[in-house]
Amino acid sequence: MTQFLQSLKWENENLLILDQTILPHKIVYRKYFHYKQVVMAIQKLIVRGAPAIGVAASYGMVLAVKSFLKEGLSGEVLKKALKEAAACFINARPTAVNLSWSVNQMLELCLVIPEKQMYKKTLEYAVHMQQQDQSICKKIAMHGAGLFVNKKNLHILTHCNTGALATSGVGTALGIITELFNRDQLNCVYIDETRPILQGSRLTASELIAANIPCKLICDNMAALVMKSKEIDAIIVGADRIAKNGDTANKIGTYALAIAASYHRIPFYVAAPFSTFDFNISSGDYIIIEERSDDEIKKIGTEWIAPAEISTFNPAFDITPHHLITAIITESGVIYHPNIETVTTYENALIKK
Amino acid sequence: MTQFLQSLKWENENLLILDQTILPHKIVYRKYFHYKQVVMAIQKLIVRGAPAIGVAASYGMVLAVKSFLKEGLSGEVLKKALKEAAACFINARPTAVNLSWSVNQMLELCLVIPEKQMYKKTLEYAVHMQQQDQSICKKIAMHGAGLFVNKKNLHILTHCNTGALATSGVGTALGIITELFNRDQLNCVYIDETRPILQGSRLTASELIAANIPCKLICDNMAALVMKSKEIDAIIVGADRIAKNGDTANKIGTYALAIAASYHRIPFYVAAPFSTFDFNISSGDYIIIEERSDDEIKKIGTEWIAPAEISTFNPAFDITPHHLITAIITESGVIYHPNIETVTTYENALIKK
Repeated sequence: MTQFLQSLKWENENLLILDQTILPHKIVYRKYFHYKQVVMAIQKLIVRGAPAIGVAASYGMVLAVKSFLKEGLSGEVLKKALKEAAACFINARPTAVNLSWSVNQMLELCLVIPEKQMYKKTLEYAVHMQQQDQSICKKIAMHGAGLFVNKKNLHILTHCNTGALATSGVGTALGIITELFNRDQLNCVYIDETRPILQGSRLTASELIAANIPCKLICDNMAALVMKSKEIDAIIVGADRIAKNGDTANKIGTYALAIAASYHRIPFYVAAPFSTFDFNISSGDYIIIEERSDDEIKKIGTEWIAPAEISTFNPAFDITPHHLITAIITESGVIYHPNIETVTTYENALIKK
Repeated sequence: MTQFLQSLKWENENLLILDQTILPHKIVYRKYFHYKQVVMAIQKLIVRGAPAIGVAASYGMVLAVKSFLKEGLSGEVLKKALKEAAACFINARPTAVNLSWSVNQMLELCLVIPEKQMYKKTLEYAVHMQQQDQSICKKIAMHGAGLFVNKKNLHILTHCNTGALATSGVGTALGIITELFNRDQLNCVYIDETRPILQGSRLTASELIAANIPCKLICDNMAALVMKSKEIDAIIVGADRIAKNGDTANKIGTYALAIAASYHRIPFYVAAPFSTFDFNISSGDYIIIEERSDDEIKKIGTEWIAPAEISTFNPAFDITPHHLITAIITESGVIYHPNIETVTTYENALIKK
């Protein structure tokens, strides 16, 4: 596979982030040397995708450590400052649980190691988390492709962007699709454009074209017709947070896809790592859905596509109830019929490890 | 109600058409003096909406008569030229049946009246068809609002544009919504933006704001979440063609809405005049779905929102099977549970009239 873009990289003690808001027009890596810049980059979707923002925030915590030590903070003052920095990251995007998962891991580490080693150790840990994300992506791709053994000529539909740009590896749902292409089992990927931010048309389309994977772009409202008329074999999407009963928060539009997939009896798969599960919440009803600004719907670039006065409802995510999900594909295997029992079995198996 | 825009008007022997492709930015009426210009205007969506293009084509046929008589055509040559003009109109948008219905009525008239009276009589008939459309809209609005008697505080979701801009009257689905507002029964209208041409965000949003009707704009992929979380009382949409069994072709995205409405047990209503029914086809399987150009998906104005190289699938319409439609609201009453029997009963009652 051609992997032409990388969502982020650590270089010369700074974090470089590929600005995804200006894709597919320009490829620009922005340099970040202060953690608050990274918080802003996450808020403004310069970096997005649940696994990628988790890794970005890990490096962001390294930048926080670096700044605070440079300012001469130590002891309780340093700890307080680090806790505040962690809170800034966690509040930047409330829905994605990977973000708080990574930041909390970084914070826990900071609180137990001597200040002298803190920069070196947190950086090592952030690098480890990035490598771990890459390895997890690869495993998800293998487990996912394993669901289609002996099948050829597949038509897959996907939503949003879950590829190299959304992670620091091959991606989650798009990693599986890429693996199917590499195994010569794929005929065509249908890509939802994914309004309002157009992660499908701007990002997934760019990734698949760069990798020479056959694909067709559609508007979100065409997916049901595509399911009916194009013999779709499966829908594969990512996730931003998964509750203990398997209810899944993902990019707005996922819920409608899952309903249409159920109506057409098409398998609906969610691909997500362990870090996407929030075992503290019992169901999707408790997942906070981030609402974003009017402008995302009313403008494209500088062009107004609606009257300036109109008000909007702009939820960034929706919740797909577990009964509409055929299986969740994780790095440790496939959870068929996700529900409170099957997800708890998965949780227990992994916590024992 | 404030009715601030008119889709078309006949003035000083020319047809004026409001250019809907540049709304909401500018209000420009374009002047047409040759029928081929009107064919182009229909193809390019300068005028759109099934009833409006029917009326536009009627006036277009008047312009054809005027040109041909001026060129000195008569007898069989004139008839042949008129048939060719009619075919041009009918081929301009293959899905909307109102177009061929109006054009065929104009052509039949031309073929039976003396050439000397042809211009005067066809113009009178086109004016009559416009007035008839206005009267039909009003009746649909009354029958539709009648479904919500004693209900207050309604939340309605609609798709595409079915208002004054799509007809030459108050509209079909949007006419009903306006009537509910006038009766003080409406709390909020949720407007799908309706990708790729954005008839919801550009046109419906403009119409509702001008009329001070409370509304919120959403992306198409948010409709399922809105159905779940906003207590939607009904979905009301228009139609471009209705088969004898009640299967309905309407703007792409309607099918997905109907599936989600069924899942949420929300009534799904289609509002359309008699002229939208195509009693010659037994089911939606025989309705030709117009596919349109890549650019509609890949560009907004001059701005590219996808890689230039990507291929697309861009159907303009989809078919909603009759079993997902709660009722079809017509100018002659409401067809509950549309199917081959109920639609045939409706057809027979109207043909007898």
